[in-house]
Amino acid sequence: MKKDFLYNEIAGNIADKIKTGVLKEGERLPSVRKLSKEHGISVNTAKRVFLELEAQSLVQSKPQSGYFISPRKYLKLPLPEASQPVPIANNSEPDELMSVYATMGRSDLTLFSIGVPSGNLLPLAKLKKEIVLATRAMKEGGTEYEPLQGNVKLRRMVAARSLAWEGNLKESDLITTNGCMNALALCMMALTKPGDTIALESPCYPGILQLALSLRLKVLEIATHPLTGIDIEALKQLLPKINVCLLVPNFNTPLGYCMPDESKKEIVALLADHHIPLIEDDLYGDLHFGPRRPKCCKSFDKDGYVLWCGSVSKTLAPGYRVGWVAPGRYKEQILKLKLIHVLSSPSVINEAVGNFLLTGRYENHLRYLRKTLQENYRKYVDAIAAYFPEGTKVSRPQGGLALWIELPDSIDTRELYNYALKKQISISPGRIFTLQDQFHNCMRLCIGLPWTDQLKLKLKQLGNLAKMIGRRS
Amino acid sequence: MKKDFLYNEIAGNIADKIKTGVLKEGERLPSVRKLSKEHGISVNTAKRVFLELEAQSLVQSKPQSGYFISPRKYLKLPLPEASQPVPIANNSEPDELMSVYATMGRSDLTLFSIGVPSGNLLPLAKLKKEIVLATRAMKEGGTEYEPLQGNVKLRRMVAARSLAWEGNLKESDLITTNGCMNALALCMMALTKPGDTIALESPCYPGILQLALSLRLKVLEIATHPLTGIDIEALKQLLPKINVCLLVPNFNTPLGYCMPDESKKEIVALLADHHIPLIEDDLYGDLHFGPRRPKCCKSFDKDGYVLWCGSVSKTLAPGYRVGWVAPGRYKEQILKLKLIHVLSSPSVINEAVGNFLLTGRYENHLRYLRKTLQENYRKYVDAIAAYFPEGTKVSRPQGGLALWIELPDSIDTRELYNYALKKQISISPGRIFTLQDQFHNCMRLCIGLPWTDQLKLKLKQLGNLAKMIGRRS
Repeated sequence: MKKDFLYNEIAGNIADKIKTGVLKEGERLPSVRKLSKEHGISVNTAKRVFLELEAQSLVQSKPQSGYFISPRKYLKLPLPEASQPVPIANNSEPDELMSVYATMGRSDLTLFSIGVPSGNLLPLAKLKKEIVLATRAMKEGGTEYEPLQGNVKLRRMVAARSLAWEGNLKESDLITTNGCMNALALCMMALTKPGDTIALESPCYPGILQLALSLRLKVLEIATHPLTGIDIEALKQLLPKINVCLLVPNFNTPLGYCMPDESKKEIVALLADHHIPLIEDDLYGDLHFGPRRPKCCKSFDKDGYVLWCGSVSKTLAPGYRVGWVAPGRYKEQILKLKLIHVLSSPSVINEAVGNFLLTGRYENHLRYLRKTLQENYRKYVDAIAAYFPEGTKVSRPQGGLALWIELPDSIDTRELYNYALKKQISISPGRIFTLQDQFHNCMRLCIGLPWTDQLKLKLKQLGNLAKMIGRRS
Repeated sequence: MKKDFLYNEIAGNIADKIKTGVLKEGERLPSVRKLSKEHGISVNTAKRVFLELEAQSLVQSKPQSGYFISPRKYLKLPLPEASQPVPIANNSEPDELMSVYATMGRSDLTLFSIGVPSGNLLPLAKLKKEIVLATRAMKEGGTEYEPLQGNVKLRRMVAARSLAWEGNLKESDLITTNGCMNALALCMMALTKPGDTIALESPCYPGILQLALSLRLKVLEIATHPLTGIDIEALKQLLPKINVCLLVPNFNTPLGYCMPDESKKEIVALLADHHIPLIEDDLYGDLHFGPRRPKCCKSFDKDGYVLWCGSVSKTLAPGYRVGWVAPGRYKEQILKLKLIHVLSSPSVINEAVGNFLLTGRYENHLRYLRKTLQENYRKYVDAIAAYFPEGTKVSRPQGGLALWIELPDSIDTRELYNYALKKQISISPGRIFTLQDQFHNCMRLCIGLPWTDQLKLKLKQLGNLAKMIGRRS
């Protein structure tokens, strides 16, 4: 669309001016009305320009005053390097995983390591009410099995929401699962046999790596760029070796990138040409900092090769274990595996979430959560700029819950993990995001914790520990 | 123990007299006091004699009148044949499974096919109350992840209840799962690699067969006796071929047998000698018709080779998906797989079930449920004796939810399944309980549906359809 093109171009021009220092820190931008007149565009298009710049954290809005250029200290932090994994399928295993996850549920720690929003950011009272109402309303109180395909209300609402990203799903296209990991597991089991090769983004969420290993797959880690995601050329080269591909294209953890629409379209066509199924993990898609919910690979799926997976675990209730998959041409296989491995999900919980989505409260909540996460992101980056060692690089997430930090080469984040734990801080060391010899000086921090002075202090402590390790080595 | 020996011997003598017709249908047995005097045993031991006979459905108690010999028509129905599977590991698949399970949740059908208690037999109001209370009481309303090992209250209560069968578990021995099938899946994944051979009872619950196939295992079906379970001699012969064994020793579905304590002890020792892990599926253990909860293989597990699995799916709430495993020496492997495949269970549900067990309401409910199931069993058998074809054989479950019916050879239960479905009746044809060419004339009926005239009519219709098929062939 012409309008899309225009607002992207204007936003790009302003972004360049900010990055090159033509526009200075703290400077006020022209008003929406003025921008609209200057470029001969509609007020709505002008608004979008600002929202886009805000999504990139280049500008900040102040109530009743307009938009201002974000502080320089944020922009000074460079991006992490593009990953350069070895293009050889691998199944050797990092050994830190269990210790990191053993901290799950420990209330004495500051859990930068767990990639979910804190309970303080969730609509707990409303959710509790929905559970109570669903429990009372259901004839057998949720003690009965669900239909195999899963709760109808929930599927209907997930289908309805897919219109926003041009997924155009119907409720019959969807199968509910026990959270998104369960959806991914069913997909991997349905599509692979032991010894097969799965292509994943590098760095990759450790749970996905471990899942692949537990199914005795070989893992091919594909290079990524920290802003645009998987390197399509690298993927192309390796296609003959690949049996199945799994991507987290929207606000990937740990890097937070959003793959451009054109890349999504290209990858879907490429994989379909080679009859390679694509498992799309879209559990962060609703957590966009920008004005619009991004499209998915599934949006471009003409031939049913894309298995689109999602959940409310990152937006509403990690502990509910409510997820789903739209498995395209693989529906029968997924249903059969669900029957064998899952049978049914807890029906009260699924009914309650279905009702919650139905009321529109979900959209209100998402607006609040997205705003908070983006504000958190800026505050984290400010703290990192202030407290972390010289030479620290930070990802520029366009949504989601994760910040990827690349410390100077000399700092091993496994060592940092151990020191931090003694100060009641838990981080995810970079080494668990790969099966290769990479990311020793990297870590992921979750930005889903509510911002407090205490949290800032923890980031300061973490920075000091990193500096201490850097000095010593 | 001497007392045990005495009551078993006396009960055995009376049972023989009933079976051989020395004691006649409807005849009244001596009172507890009289029996106690006659044999010089305590009143309690005498009571046990009657409870044991009642468990075998040989006698019935009438309030204020004492015990009477059960009607002959019940006793006339012979037992099904002992199974004779081919002793060769197999992985060919029956194709009826999906259609049977597609009927799950269909309220227009009489679901003899689904092996769970009907909602009418469950303490729905009390469970609903527990869910509401837990939702309100939990700080984050259950939106948070549980600790990896699972809800502490639930584990504590399952451990406490294990004293009754001399399991003597501690809460730290247990890991919660999403229902019992999930526990079995984690165990199989932890203990096997593709191509390994798993030994199972024949006939076997189809979900277990399918689970083994989905993990690319070869299945070795072992012969069973309809009253005592697996044929230990047959198992012994095949030990060198076996990597892992899975048994449902207590009130097995479909046959309903309870493996004698001595057999459990022998099998545990035998498998431990050969370092073969035993996955014990004990989800029916609390549904004993007799006076005492049977022991488990886990009761005799000295070396940690037994992975004891259970749930409340067959006793309290199928749809809650609350289960657990005490994995013995395999705890680390199971925890790791739980992290990858499950991560967390819905915490509200697990907390609510933990609380329910804590109140002692569970024991009250179990007493009611057991009594109802045993009454149902008798009524089913009466109806089958009245309406089913000449030559029909019926299992004599000592607990649980299943009745296994062997029709005359000429009647194919796949055909019966199709005819029955047209009359809104769903059954489980025998062919889905094996990967071999067996059980074409068998079927499983669930006795967990509330007894009504309508249900009796459905059994009559089923019997008539079977007769019709028998006449035609």
